[in-house]
Amino acid sequence: MDEVIEKLKKVEGITSKTAEKILIDIIESKEKLNIIKDVLKTIDENFDNCPICNFYTINKKCSFCDNETRNKDQICVVTSKKEANKILKSDFRGMVHVLNGEINLNKNISPELIQLPKLFARISKDMEIILATNLTFNGEVTANYIINVIKENCKKISRLARGIPFGGSLDYIDEETLINAIENRRIIKK
Amino acid sequence: MDEVIEKLKKVEGITSKTAEKILIDIIESKEKLNIIKDVLKTIDENFDNCPICNFYTINKKCSFCDNETRNKDQICVVTSKKEANKILKSDFRGMVHVLNGEINLNKNISPELIQLPKLFARISKDMEIILATNLTFNGEVTANYIINVIKENCKKISRLARGIPFGGSLDYIDEETLINAIENRRIIKK
Repeated sequence: MDEVIEKLKKVEGITSKTAEKILIDIIESKEKLNIIKDVLKTIDENFDNCPICNFYTINKKCSFCDNETRNKDQICVVTSKKEANKILKSDFRGMVHVLNGEINLNKNISPELIQLPKLFARISKDMEIILATNLTFNGEVTANYIINVIKENCKKISRLARGIPFGGSLDYIDEETLINAIENRRIIKK
Repeated sequence: MDEVIEKLKKVEGITSKTAEKILIDIIESKEKLNIIKDVLKTIDENFDNCPICNFYTINKKCSFCDNETRNKDQICVVTSKKEANKILKSDFRGMVHVLNGEINLNKNISPELIQLPKLFARISKDMEIILATNLTFNGEVTANYIINVIKENCKKISRLARGIPFGGSLDYIDEETLINAIENRRIIKK
């Protein structure tokens, strides 16, 4: 049992306690086991990473990149798919770029590891880049690094408004606050 | 995405936030997806419910019922497999019986629904029954119901010592405290 729990813990979001609950529930009920099997099949067959923005695609379609009604000249840079998912549900009508993490010198996470080259390749002169990295130390490092690289290559750079508490992780912010922060974004280069 | 999250939430222990984290992790990494697939396969092929005590079996063997060195005349009655798992790791050398819940009149959970008939069928004159239900209202109702039914049919009935805080759920008790409470159990019938 402990062996199986250790395996499950390798998946993001699953703690020992969660793993134990899940295992007991699926031992007791084949129905629950089939639910997870179904979900894995759906993910395996229909979901993938978007080659452009690194959000997920369903049946090869990305809700951002393959939506013609979105403003291609506005890219909101976020650190994870979770935040991109929140932005998808908000009123924001531009594009996103999912970094998959933040620059972290202590953990040897360099710009190449977090999809930054892909971001830089997307940027053009007419664009506004909205930096929506976390307002934490590593989030700031990441934002400043991006600003330095792109400042000559785009029209406008902005950061989320300080509606978000200092030191706060975007993960726990409600959608309302998030869209407010996008609307009140602070212009860094105009 | 929300549809898949709703599905996963049907499994015990998975909240919306956990489901989202799991899904994003398995979209990003096939390796994680395969870990869960592996776990499901292992559970499906090797794990089952023990027909005697309702703990789990691995390859049809129950760590309690199929272990000849355990004392068959001592049955510790618990409400879930999780607690049985803790007891398995402790120094207790008797058997267990997993109830799968507690009697709850508000929720129409009657004795038949929680594996009590199976418990009663196991009891014999030479046995000690150790009641390790939670020290909550429904745990007490369940314990009292069992005491009333079995008091003439076994040698000894005991409850866990009050080392466990009143109103406390067994789920969050460490193994040390649990084994102490078993050792200091209060005798109800001698």
